[in-house]
Amino acid sequence: MSELHDPALLARLIAVVGAERVACSAQDMAPFLTDWRGRYSGDALAVVHPGTTEEVASVVGLCAGHGVAVVPQGGNTGLCGGATPLPGARSVVLNLSRLNRIRAVDTANNTLVAEAGCTLASIQAAARDVGRLFPLSLASEGSCEIGGNLSTNAGGVQVLRYGNMRDLTLGLEVVLPDGRIWDGLRGLRKDNTGYDLKHLFIGAEGTLGVITAAVLKLYPAPRARVTAWVKVADPEAAVRLLGHLQDRCGDRVTAFEIVGAEALGLVLEHIPDMRAPLYPIGPWSVLVELTDAAVGNGLDALLERELGAAFDRGLAEDAVVAASLAQAGALWALRENISEAQRIEGFSIKHDIAVPVSRIAEFLRRAEAALYARWPDVRIVVFGHIGDGNLHYNLSKPDSLDNARFLGLTPEINRVVHDLVDELGGTISAEHGLGQLKREEVTRYKNPVELDLMRLVKSGLDPQNIMNPGKVI
Amino acid sequence: MSELHDPALLARLIAVVGAERVACSAQDMAPFLTDWRGRYSGDALAVVHPGTTEEVASVVGLCAGHGVAVVPQGGNTGLCGGATPLPGARSVVLNLSRLNRIRAVDTANNTLVAEAGCTLASIQAAARDVGRLFPLSLASEGSCEIGGNLSTNAGGVQVLRYGNMRDLTLGLEVVLPDGRIWDGLRGLRKDNTGYDLKHLFIGAEGTLGVITAAVLKLYPAPRARVTAWVKVADPEAAVRLLGHLQDRCGDRVTAFEIVGAEALGLVLEHIPDMRAPLYPIGPWSVLVELTDAAVGNGLDALLERELGAAFDRGLAEDAVVAASLAQAGALWALRENISEAQRIEGFSIKHDIAVPVSRIAEFLRRAEAALYARWPDVRIVVFGHIGDGNLHYNLSKPDSLDNARFLGLTPEINRVVHDLVDELGGTISAEHGLGQLKREEVTRYKNPVELDLMRLVKSGLDPQNIMNPGKVI
Repeated sequence: MSELHDPALLARLIAVVGAERVACSAQDMAPFLTDWRGRYSGDALAVVHPGTTEEVASVVGLCAGHGVAVVPQGGNTGLCGGATPLPGARSVVLNLSRLNRIRAVDTANNTLVAEAGCTLASIQAAARDVGRLFPLSLASEGSCEIGGNLSTNAGGVQVLRYGNMRDLTLGLEVVLPDGRIWDGLRGLRKDNTGYDLKHLFIGAEGTLGVITAAVLKLYPAPRARVTAWVKVADPEAAVRLLGHLQDRCGDRVTAFEIVGAEALGLVLEHIPDMRAPLYPIGPWSVLVELTDAAVGNGLDALLERELGAAFDRGLAEDAVVAASLAQAGALWALRENISEAQRIEGFSIKHDIAVPVSRIAEFLRRAEAALYARWPDVRIVVFGHIGDGNLHYNLSKPDSLDNARFLGLTPEINRVVHDLVDELGGTISAEHGLGQLKREEVTRYKNPVELDLMRLVKSGLDPQNIMNPGKVI
Repeated sequence: MSELHDPALLARLIAVVGAERVACSAQDMAPFLTDWRGRYSGDALAVVHPGTTEEVASVVGLCAGHGVAVVPQGGNTGLCGGATPLPGARSVVLNLSRLNRIRAVDTANNTLVAEAGCTLASIQAAARDVGRLFPLSLASEGSCEIGGNLSTNAGGVQVLRYGNMRDLTLGLEVVLPDGRIWDGLRGLRKDNTGYDLKHLFIGAEGTLGVITAAVLKLYPAPRARVTAWVKVADPEAAVRLLGHLQDRCGDRVTAFEIVGAEALGLVLEHIPDMRAPLYPIGPWSVLVELTDAAVGNGLDALLERELGAAFDRGLAEDAVVAASLAQAGALWALRENISEAQRIEGFSIKHDIAVPVSRIAEFLRRAEAALYARWPDVRIVVFGHIGDGNLHYNLSKPDSLDNARFLGLTPEINRVVHDLVDELGGTISAEHGLGQLKREEVTRYKNPVELDLMRLVKSGLDPQNIMNPGKVI
């Protein structure tokens, strides 16, 4: 580590944020140098914990002056190593957790201004406190931070109705790679005065600047909710059922999640107190949720009527509609525990893919055939946001292979899955980003013109390559 | 014009698109060198009408090689001179009207792929033909083209529910300033594989490249619709009424347009067969529309119930709910004829501004006070998309001034209006863009860091400044 040391920079960082906010011992830095799944570890000169946007600007400016990389980090819950420094890097980890104030709430404008270090759950709560909804919803919402959600353009289970993080954002405050602050905190629904710069920083994983605050959209709070578990014959039927419900119920359709039999089986096997909502469980199920801001407007009756119509048209085989909040919670638990059940089951190779909704059925059919042809006993665990065309397409280790052998198959399996995704006009990262994990892989599929444009943007905004180098591009 | 002539370029353009697709006589070029309101006129070496993306790419590449500017043009319905060449410019007008194919419609994915030259109305019709809605809706929809809608990030009367053009777009095909084609025509709801480049080109008014096609989002077609005209005491009440209806009816609230007494009076005076929905007309009215994809779900009853609750809370004074499609059409005609009535009345100075919805009432109060203090007999004509914070804030000529004197006041009046908009966190161009009209004005209000970022993007993507120079930035 000694060649990484830079005492002059450290002294200046301490002058900006105080000695207690600059960690540089191995022990103090450790939690910030490894991602939460333990897949990536790196090195840093220091981990710095600024408390204001001005401190962030000073830290970035100092790092730029010393030619030291800046790795922005929020709740450190990412899945692709985007917030972990590289091994051997001359870098400073810039942890934003202390920027955790809700700066303003404007109910008439339906907006909220949050600093980057606010947890997603704290923002949801601030919206709830004023009778509004902030709709982003993720498994890690208690610990992930909004700066990370913005930088990865986070998705989750309500994108179908409310869109991605990008769609929920009206304005940004960003510290640029040279340490200047861009104040783009406008709370406007319409503003056509030039290039919409916020979209450059959203989803850029900290490679173009550090997001320090954002103006977020709020929505009317739903007052009615109805949740159902529906057995369907196959993914084709699931897609047609989605189309039927959207056609008849409009944007009441808030969630539409597919769960394959293998995924449901793992939950029933490994998670306590789970039970199948319908017997037999059948090959495919969907979890449907409708919500409505209006009360007394017959939401349950509407869903029951349209599920009835779906049975008549052969789009659904059987269904149970939750009769209570507790029952709805039990249905959601089946969906939300899939990742944990997979972790207990053992090693898996995961894909976060999307294709056009109209190609989902073809993707599943062809991917399964191609994988079984080469690895007949691999287990395919499928679930996810079929309404967005986004599947978590995971392969669990077959009993015939040990962990190391199975892990070694990752590149070959990725090739089969990702080549097919690409052929069908899809993406190899629907909602998790690129980070370190898919930075190389994506260059195989993005066309050279698009890669060139990305490089032009990167070199234009960050000519020194200070911001989170080795990620995304 | 002779110094503008470039025979070698003309010969090469003719080789690409054919002689009949290259206009270079003054007479043939005239319709394309002036905007439809006759406020801007410019010069060009030629007006070129390519028929395919490849032809567009060849034309742009040739112009780049000859150092000649490219001015992309669609339906030529813009309000800010963005599609008109500059006087004396060595430029080629690139008219995209022949790229007018709907390339694909995918109902399961709820997407449609349209070329830039498709009129907005033709896209609405293609969606309707498959039982879907394409929600962008503008006064000029019969003649404006989707490439122009994309390049200006068009708005209109349904942004409240469905968002701007930007929000309705999943993917783009763009010819870059060097003549390369970027194929970003992905129809994905989720894709986190690097910088989201489409947002650079949307709203850039052709200064970064030429949009040749787009993947657009489709929505369930509304099956129920209810329209009402509501008298309110003041803009504050209008904003509170909007909040109440959104809270109770959610995203059924599709349009919410404010109309001031002066605007309504002009329509009643100048447009045949108009009549006031309520007497007396009162100082302020709103046009409210709710829609729902579901049928038989009591939309009329819901609106009547919530308007009743609004009366009880003092948010509304009187209301009429349309009892037929014809009555709804008559209410909409009052709103849609305001611009025409203003044109008949005489000269006006127009502003397309937005502030946060929570600041609308303050803006109107303070702007009126400041304007009346200096010009006591000016007439303020206010209407627009109050749900988006977007007002068309127009001043009609007072009888005491002639046209020329009134026109001469434009800079002073702009200063009063725009300074206040800026103080309230607003924008001087909500939905019309900058074009030539507001290119200088915006530099007064945008912070220098943002202007720098815009320049970095422009010079990075278009180092020769070939694309629509003299517009936006």
